[in-house]
Amino acid sequence: MTSLNSYLNQIKELNTEAMNQAQARLDNLAKPPGSLGELEAIATKLAGISGQMHYDTSKRCIIIMASDNGVVDEGVAAAPQGVTYAHTLNFTKGITGVNVLAKQFNMDLIVVDVGINGDISHPMVKNHKIRKATHNITKGPAMSHDEVVKAIITGINVAIQAVEDGYKLLGAGEMGIGNTTTTAAVLCALTGIKPEQAAGKGAGLSNEAYSRKISAIDSALRINSPNPADALDVLAKVGGFDIAAMAGVFIGGAVMRVPVVIDGFISIAAALAAYRLNPLVRGYMFASHASAEQGYTHAANALGLKPCLHLNMRLGEGSGCPLMFAVMDAACAILRDMGTFEQGNIDSEYVAASQIVKENF
Amino acid sequence: MTSLNSYLNQIKELNTEAMNQAQARLDNLAKPPGSLGELEAIATKLAGISGQMHYDTSKRCIIIMASDNGVVDEGVAAAPQGVTYAHTLNFTKGITGVNVLAKQFNMDLIVVDVGINGDISHPMVKNHKIRKATHNITKGPAMSHDEVVKAIITGINVAIQAVEDGYKLLGAGEMGIGNTTTTAAVLCALTGIKPEQAAGKGAGLSNEAYSRKISAIDSALRINSPNPADALDVLAKVGGFDIAAMAGVFIGGAVMRVPVVIDGFISIAAALAAYRLNPLVRGYMFASHASAEQGYTHAANALGLKPCLHLNMRLGEGSGCPLMFAVMDAACAILRDMGTFEQGNIDSEYVAASQIVKENF
Repeated sequence: MTSLNSYLNQIKELNTEAMNQAQARLDNLAKPPGSLGELEAIATKLAGISGQMHYDTSKRCIIIMASDNGVVDEGVAAAPQGVTYAHTLNFTKGITGVNVLAKQFNMDLIVVDVGINGDISHPMVKNHKIRKATHNITKGPAMSHDEVVKAIITGINVAIQAVEDGYKLLGAGEMGIGNTTTTAAVLCALTGIKPEQAAGKGAGLSNEAYSRKISAIDSALRINSPNPADALDVLAKVGGFDIAAMAGVFIGGAVMRVPVVIDGFISIAAALAAYRLNPLVRGYMFASHASAEQGYTHAANALGLKPCLHLNMRLGEGSGCPLMFAVMDAACAILRDMGTFEQGNIDSEYVAASQIVKENF
Repeated sequence: MTSLNSYLNQIKELNTEAMNQAQARLDNLAKPPGSLGELEAIATKLAGISGQMHYDTSKRCIIIMASDNGVVDEGVAAAPQGVTYAHTLNFTKGITGVNVLAKQFNMDLIVVDVGINGDISHPMVKNHKIRKATHNITKGPAMSHDEVVKAIITGINVAIQAVEDGYKLLGAGEMGIGNTTTTAAVLCALTGIKPEQAAGKGAGLSNEAYSRKISAIDSALRINSPNPADALDVLAKVGGFDIAAMAGVFIGGAVMRVPVVIDGFISIAAALAAYRLNPLVRGYMFASHASAEQGYTHAANALGLKPCLHLNMRLGEGSGCPLMFAVMDAACAILRDMGTFEQGNIDSEYVAASQIVKENF
C-alpha cells in the first residue's frame, strides 16, 4: 500500500499558466473586469487544477464517510448512537437531505462505512470499517497511529477510485453521531481556540448536554495533549474515523488534480487537517456554505477559504455540496459561453475605461 | 388603466395556515429540526405565497428593465451611454452574463426597453419606452410624477403578463449606464445614509470619476429635496425608469402572488422603494446575492432581508437571480422529497431529543 507520505508528496502546485489564460479570457468577456467576483475566481482555480482552460463539472459525487464515536458515552449528542447506522441506511433509500439535493443537482453518492458501530451489508455502502467506533476521547486517544493513517489512506483511495471511475468533482460529507464533539476537539487542538468557541449545539442539544459537550472536549484535550503541530496526532487522539477519512478525500482529490468541495463544520475541520499535512491541498478545495455551527468560521479563517453560500444550515451529510456544485457549474458556464467585448459590440472606450478600473482597484 | 393604488391595495398577507403546514412537514423530516436553515425558511415562505404546501419553480424568468440616465453627463460612469443600447441587444444574442446563467439554470429572459436613448426594434425587446433617458438629476427631477407612475405600472403589467404566460418565479434585473449613481441617490433619500456609504465604484470607476459620482449624488439630493417618506417622489426626482419599473415588477409579482427574486444593488433599491409603497410586498421578495457594491448592505438592512449567496458580484443584468432560483429549487425539493422520521427508522428517542432542542433554542 502506498504510504501516506508518498501520496502527500505527489500533490503539485496549481498550473499558473492555465490560470493566467483563464483570467485573460475572463477579462475579455463583455462585462466589467472582475464583476463576476467569485464565479471568476472559481473558474480560474479550476483551470489551475486541471491545467486546461475549461472544466467539465457534469460528473460529480459526494463521498460520505460514516462512523461512530466513543465519546457519545459522555451524553454529548442529541441522538442515540444507533442513528448513525439507521441514517447510513437511509442514504441507500434516497430519503435523506443530501439524497434529495444530490438528485436535484445531478450527482451520485458514495457511502463508506469507516467505523459504524454495527454491521451494514448493503451494495451501496462500501465497507472500509477501521473498527466499530472510536474510543471515548475523554478517556484516552480515539484511535492508534496506525488506525489514523489507515483511515486517511482509506479516504485517499476512495477519492482516487472515484476519479478513476470518471468523477471530476468531489464533495466530502459525513454521518456520525457525536462528531461535532470530536470535530470541535480537533479544531481546538489545531487552532488554539477554546471549546466554547469551537462547539455549538450540533444537531440539537439541550443546555445541559451542551455543558457536558464542553466538559468532554476540555477533558479530551487535557488527557490526550495532542500536538498542535502534528495533524496526525490530533486526528488520532481527539478525532474520529470519519474526520480522518474525509481528510483523506481532500488529499486524494489533490493527488488526482480534481476539485473537492468542503461541506460544513466537520468537513472543514477535516480540510484543515489535510491542509496541515500539506498546504498544497488547499488549492484543490472549495468552501461551500457557512455552517450554522459557530466553530465553522474559525476553521474557515484558519484555512483561508470563504464560503459562497450563507444558508444557516447545520445538517452535515455533505448537504452543502450540491448547491456549491451548482455555483461551480455557473462559473464554468461563464468562462465557456459568454461573449467577448468584440462580439458584444462594446466599444474600445469601454474597454479602456475598464482598464482604468483595474488599475485603480 | 388600473391605478397604482388599486394594484397596491390588491396585495395580501402571506397565508399563515399554509406556512404552518409546510413547517410541520419540515419538522417531521428525517433531520434535526431547523437544520436546513434558509432552505426551510424559503420553502415555508413559498407556501405562504401560494397558499399550497408545494411550489413549482420550474417555469421562471428574469425581467430586465433597460433605460438610460441623464446623469451620465456628469462623468459618473465608466462606460459611455451607448453601452446601454449595445448591451441590451447583446441580451438578444445570448452572449451576456445573465444569458449564460439563465441557460445554465433553465429560465427565460424578458427584456424591456423603458427608456433607452436610442431606437431598438427587435422582437425579443419589449418596447415600453417612457422617454429616451431621464433628465440629469443634478439639474432637476429625473422624471415627472406621471412618468414615474407610468414606469411603475409598466413593471407591474410586465410582471402580471409574465405570470399570465405561466411563469411562477420572477427575477428583477436591469441594464442602464449610470444607474448605480441614481440608485445610490434613491438609497440616500430613502434611508438617510450618506452618498459615500451608498455609492461604490459601480461597473468600474477611476478615483476621479468616483469623486464626480459622490458630488453628483450630493447635488441631486440638494437640488431636488426628495421627500424620504414618499417613495414615488424619491423615484421621480433622483431615480430612473429602470428602478421605477423594477419596483413595479416586485409589486406585480405580489399582486399575482408569485415570488420575485432581487438581484444586486439596483434591484434591491427598487425592492426597497416597492416595500415603502406597501410593506406587504416584502413577503413575496427573496434576496439572492450580496452585491459587491457597498450600498447593497444598507438597502438589505433597511428592507430586512438577507442574501443567501456571497459571490462578490457586481454585474447587474439580473445575473444573481439564476443561482438563487437554484437555491429555491433546492428548498422545494427538500420539502417535497425528503423522508420523514418514520420512513427513516429514526426512533422516538431522537424525535424526543429534537423536541428538547426546539425548546432550548
